[in-house]
Amino acid sequence: MVSIIMGSDSDLPVMRAAAEVLATFGVPFEVTIVSAHRTPDRLFSYARAAADRGIQVIIAGAGGAAHLPGMVASLTPLPVIGVPIKSSNSIDGWDSVLSILQMPGGIPVATVALNGAKNAGLLAVRILGAQSPDLRQQMADYQEKLRAEVEEKYQRLERDGWQ
Amino acid sequence: MVSIIMGSDSDLPVMRAAAEVLATFGVPFEVTIVSAHRTPDRLFSYARAAADRGIQVIIAGAGGAAHLPGMVASLTPLPVIGVPIKSSNSIDGWDSVLSILQMPGGIPVATVALNGAKNAGLLAVRILGAQSPDLRQQMADYQEKLRAEVEEKYQRLERDGWQ
Amino acid sequence: MVSIIMGSDSDLPVMRAAAEVLATFGVPFEVTIVSAHRTPDRLFSYARAAADRGIQVIIAGAGGAAHLPGMVASLTPLPVIGVPIKSSNSIDGWDSVLSILQMPGGIPVATVALNGAKNAGLLAVRILGAQSPDLRQQMADYQEKLRAEVEEKYQRLERDGWQ
Amino acid sequence: MVSIIMGSDSDLPVMRAAAEVLATFGVPFEVTIVSAHRTPDRLFSYARAAADRGIQVIIAGAGGAAHLPGMVASLTPLPVIGVPIKSSNSIDGWDSVLSILQMPGGIPVATVALNGAKNAGLLAVRILGAQSPDLRQQMADYQEKLRAEVEEKYQRLERDGWQ
Amino acid sequence: MVSIIMGSDSDLPVMRAAAEVLATFGVPFEVTIVSAHRTPDRLFSYARAAADRGIQVIIAGAGGAAHLPGMVASLTPLPVIGVPIKSSNSIDGWDSVLSILQMPGGIPVATVALNGAKNAGLLAVRILGAQSPDLRQQMADYQEKLRAEVEEKYQRLERDGWQ
Amino acid sequence: MVSIIMGSDSDLPVMRAAAEVLATFGVPFEVTIVSAHRTPDRLFSYARAAADRGIQVIIAGAGGAAHLPGMVASLTPLPVIGVPIKSSNSIDGWDSVLSILQMPGGIPVATVALNGAKNAGLLAVRILGAQSPDLRQQMADYQEKLRAEVEEKYQRLERDGWQ
Amino acid sequence: MVSIIMGSDSDLPVMRAAAEVLATFGVPFEVTIVSAHRTPDRLFSYARAAADRGIQVIIAGAGGAAHLPGMVASLTPLPVIGVPIKSSNSIDGWDSVLSILQMPGGIPVATVALNGAKNAGLLAVRILGAQSPDLRQQMADYQEKLRAEVEEKYQRLERDGWQ
Amino acid sequence: MVSIIMGSDSDLPVMRAAAEVLATFGVPFEVTIVSAHRTPDRLFSYARAAADRGIQVIIAGAGGAAHLPGMVASLTPLPVIGVPIKSSNSIDGWDSVLSILQMPGGIPVATVALNGAKNAGLLAVRILGAQSPDLRQQMADYQEKLRAEVEEKYQRLERDGWQ
Repeated sequence: MVSIIMGSDSDLPVMRAAAEVLATFGVPFEVTIVSAHRTPDRLFSYARAAADRGIQVIIAGAGGAAHLPGMVASLTPLPVIGVPIKSSNSIDGWDSVLSILQMPGGIPVATVALNGAKNAGLLAVRILGAQSPDLRQQMADYQEKLRAEVEEKYQRLERDGWQ
Repeated sequence: MVSIIMGSDSDLPVMRAAAEVLATFGVPFEVTIVSAHRTPDRLFSYARAAADRGIQVIIAGAGGAAHLPGMVASLTPLPVIGVPIKSSNSIDGWDSVLSILQMPGGIPVATVALNGAKNAGLLAVRILGAQSPDLRQQMADYQEKLRAEVEEKYQRLERDGWQ
Repeated sequence: MVSIIMGSDSDLPVMRAAAEVLATFGVPFEVTIVSAHRTPDRLFSYARAAADRGIQVIIAGAGGAAHLPGMVASLTPLPVIGVPIKSSNSIDGWDSVLSILQMPGGIPVATVALNGAKNAGLLAVRILGAQSPDLRQQMADYQEKLRAEVEEKYQRLERDGWQ
Repeated sequence: MVSIIMGSDSDLPVMRAAAEVLATFGVPFEVTIVSAHRTPDRLFSYARAAADRGIQVIIAGAGGAAHLPGMVASLTPLPVIGVPIKSSNSIDGWDSVLSILQMPGGIPVATVALNGAKNAGLLAVRILGAQSPDLRQQMADYQEKLRAEVEEKYQRLERDGWQ
Repeated sequence: MVSIIMGSDSDLPVMRAAAEVLATFGVPFEVTIVSAHRTPDRLFSYARAAADRGIQVIIAGAGGAAHLPGMVASLTPLPVIGVPIKSSNSIDGWDSVLSILQMPGGIPVATVALNGAKNAGLLAVRILGAQSPDLRQQMADYQEKLRAEVEEKYQRLERDGWQ
Repeated sequence: MVSIIMGSDSDLPVMRAAAEVLATFGVPFEVTIVSAHRTPDRLFSYARAAADRGIQVIIAGAGGAAHLPGMVASLTPLPVIGVPIKSSNSIDGWDSVLSILQMPGGIPVATVALNGAKNAGLLAVRILGAQSPDLRQQMADYQEKLRAEVEEKYQRLERDGWQ
Repeated sequence: MVSIIMGSDSDLPVMRAAAEVLATFGVPFEVTIVSAHRTPDRLFSYARAAADRGIQVIIAGAGGAAHLPGMVASLTPLPVIGVPIKSSNSIDGWDSVLSILQMPGGIPVATVALNGAKNAGLLAVRILGAQSPDLRQQMADYQEKLRAEVEEKYQRLERDGWQ
Repeated sequence: MVSIIMGSDSDLPVMRAAAEVLATFGVPFEVTIVSAHRTPDRLFSYARAAADRGIQVIIAGAGGAAHLPGMVASLTPLPVIGVPIKSSNSIDGWDSVLSILQMPGGIPVATVALNGAKNAGLLAVRILGAQSPDLRQQMADYQEKLRAEVEEKYQRLERDGWQ
């Protein structure tokens, strides 16, 4: 069971990609809003209870001075994946990237690319697949599908020409 | 009463300057360690209780993905001053600056310069001085002292020459 | 009494948010234009006279090589909040952020996020609330309102689903 | 079983911290050198064979134009943790951070902080703990130990004073 | 014979400029898609076989954590020209620039400007021209043509005025 | 007559190079300290009076949130040369560079390189030379001397070899 | 007599502002195109001849790896003002800013803000005014006009309100 | 025949690595100093004459606002390799990187990593090898040697352990 949380519903257009990946892989998940700054009590109770509720991986997306992924990681022993979101008034996304990535020693966050919610979903699948041969095979199949898509594209390009 | 908190005792060499300023101005203060990531419960209880304990301003210093000032600000209605600290493995200080400065709308943090603990102390004095003619006068005197120091320096430079 | 000043009327669309916050909290304020570079005499007389006119906090917004907040801070013992504005021809906002944030020791400016005028207003309320139980309560109520808004959003999201 | 690989033996002083964490948690691991640019065949055979050899998580550290973590991730369905290393001639570490973090959609890398090998080890433990109540408990104990260390520090600071 | 490869067909609008230059100079070339992350086997076989197939220069374009140019360079003794592409979700192009430019000692990539595919094509011509007086003369003619175009422009500007 | 001013006597080791250049060219100059933030009145009186005192060019050096050059430029019609100084706690010098360079339309500052006081002195000579054939000739001679120094160096290198 | 040069006619929309300023102040000027990279011979002959043709100040605008201002400065003893232009495919303007600003000791370029052609024109007027009381007075009048415009704006704002 | 040039003899400690590579591969080369800013005439005559003197590739290293590689490229039809050098007072090397890399369309420079003179030498060998099976074989042997060195290292590491 994977939990996808985000600081605001305005993050949903980005974070949706994580949910879509999990749905595709048949991994159960839930999606909700937890704001580190506006709902700190909820942050605590949600993160503290996650492991006991059967959550195995938490994906947390946030923008600007993004404290959600790091605070969740400090409140749970589960692996936490951080998705830096390029919000309006962001300084080119550097703020969310650095405030998620540069965690101090002791509390890790698995950071993915700016707006990289799709990869956050795939990383959650790989994490669950670390101990599930079936999911690992699904991931290998997915990688094969990526390969096949590129093959189709380069065959079309070589056939039709670059003009 | 001002509270000076920091994420680690390794921040003390930087944060000490804030305490020294407050001592000079005769403003009562306390100094302690609160780590957002390693003592989240303490973060909650400390920040939640601060106002009722008579704290009027909180100065919070942290490095890297610095979540302490912003999380404290979300847990108290008091003014919070954030001091970005250039820790080892920091990416030139950009990480702590951006993760303190770029707070989302709703939860303000008064950010000062990188390693700017002295100015954090002075800002706390100005904040208390907003409603204390006496402290305001002390701050005016302090500014006059800065002026006089520069005057002494340029007179010496003009007298002794630039070589 | 709070003073909101800005370097140009082109900054008003950003700075308006500070005024709206103060109006909401019932804090008296004034709004005007003071340009450090184009009206240096006005900068001096305005900043020097502010405390005696009953101003308690000054919010100053400026873009590019933003000298207004820092110069005002050097001319008054009052707390000064700086709002970096992302003007046209700005280098992604870095110029205004750094020229407001990186003040030398001795003269503090309370810097908020890029275009963060709303938080500047809220910070002014917190500063006044440091010595006003009533305003502090209002701020606590405001934070509770933020929480309730997020609660409404996550309940809607959990009810309606993420698709 | 965790695999710790790095591009060069000059990365060992940084990457050692990951091994130490795993040893502390009693997680079996191996340490070796795989260079994406100097041993591309080894990169292929190593990454391709990892899952079948019983590896569950791969930690890959590299500096500069760091291609090792991303290439390994493209060759295995396992979760890959990337450690950006600040090598000599690095441009302040930005090069390794960005060339590990900004992976394209489809191939995730779990990036940790610059030189953050300790957190890479902890993240590997959390990943394995996602399906191991015992490891999860060990991680919770570790977090409690971090808390206790800070408690000791702030008690000492409060007792001995900040001077 | 020059090979132009790119990580995705979405890079074609940028990379086309390299092909157009080569066509203009009458240099034979091929264009295809090779993805380091989605088609690693193809990356290997393509890069390994290039020299024996008569390829003399490889132009490789990629965005984000751009590993294609560097990995190709590790797999061939041929000169490889890297074109950093500013993809969507790129952090202003810094990611592709740094992950192509900052190659470790031993494996060079000839990096051109962000989206600089035209210059990549011209560089390939210069490389072939290093041992071909005819191509070198064509390049000198091309530079003369650039000069003549500017001459026409400044004469028009001086004649028509700057208004 | 050229005026060399700086925000602090700690800037003198950098700014000295400007004085040395002017002494070499026989251009009269004065050196003093004017702090925008600590001596704002002196800033005003000094800058306002400069032109009438016979100053023709002002060189102003400052670090961090460097407001001195821009404020002087707003208070005088004379050409002002700004020298960004990399002070301690500077964020790699970006702060002083941007807060001097990015002046708003209307008030120009002639910015030179980080710590580029020598070039500031040379620029002052060129500015005075714009209307002095003698100084212009001296500058041409200086450029010839630079050329001769390089000539000596490459002749030595070619004679003695690069080992 | 001022010379305004630029690397390409695509720079004219930005550089026009310099010409307009000079026209307003009645300073004679010429406008033309000189490309460092496409017309190196013209660069040499133009820059070398400028002083003897009566040019007193050169304003040079260029984008990307902007070599025009620096090369012109190496070929003339006149003061050279550099205007960094944010061209397409620029990396946010950092490339042109740094390649104009960071000149080595010996060859100064007076750099203005990104796209700051208006200030380049004003700086040229100030440079000529260093030895012309009349131009200096015009500049003082211009600064007074800036002041009056702001005065009009703040009076309107104070009269009409900020809503 | 390869030409290695640099802006100053202070660049020799970095640029020496290019010479050593060429010596190792038995490629004839010359080393000298050409300063774009201090010896512009030499820049012209050297670059213009290079092709006719039998030079096939030019390696040019420079720091700060590095104009040498780009100006040489504009004056010759030969391939030019640019080496950004991190000089003192450089802004972390960004200045030399961007002023070499971001060349405008029409004039390519093959840029290598900051201080990457070794790779510049290797790139020159690859360029010459594009039409020399013998040199290409030598490069393949060199790559094999790199591989063998890594093999030795990982065997030692696996044998001796990571402690």
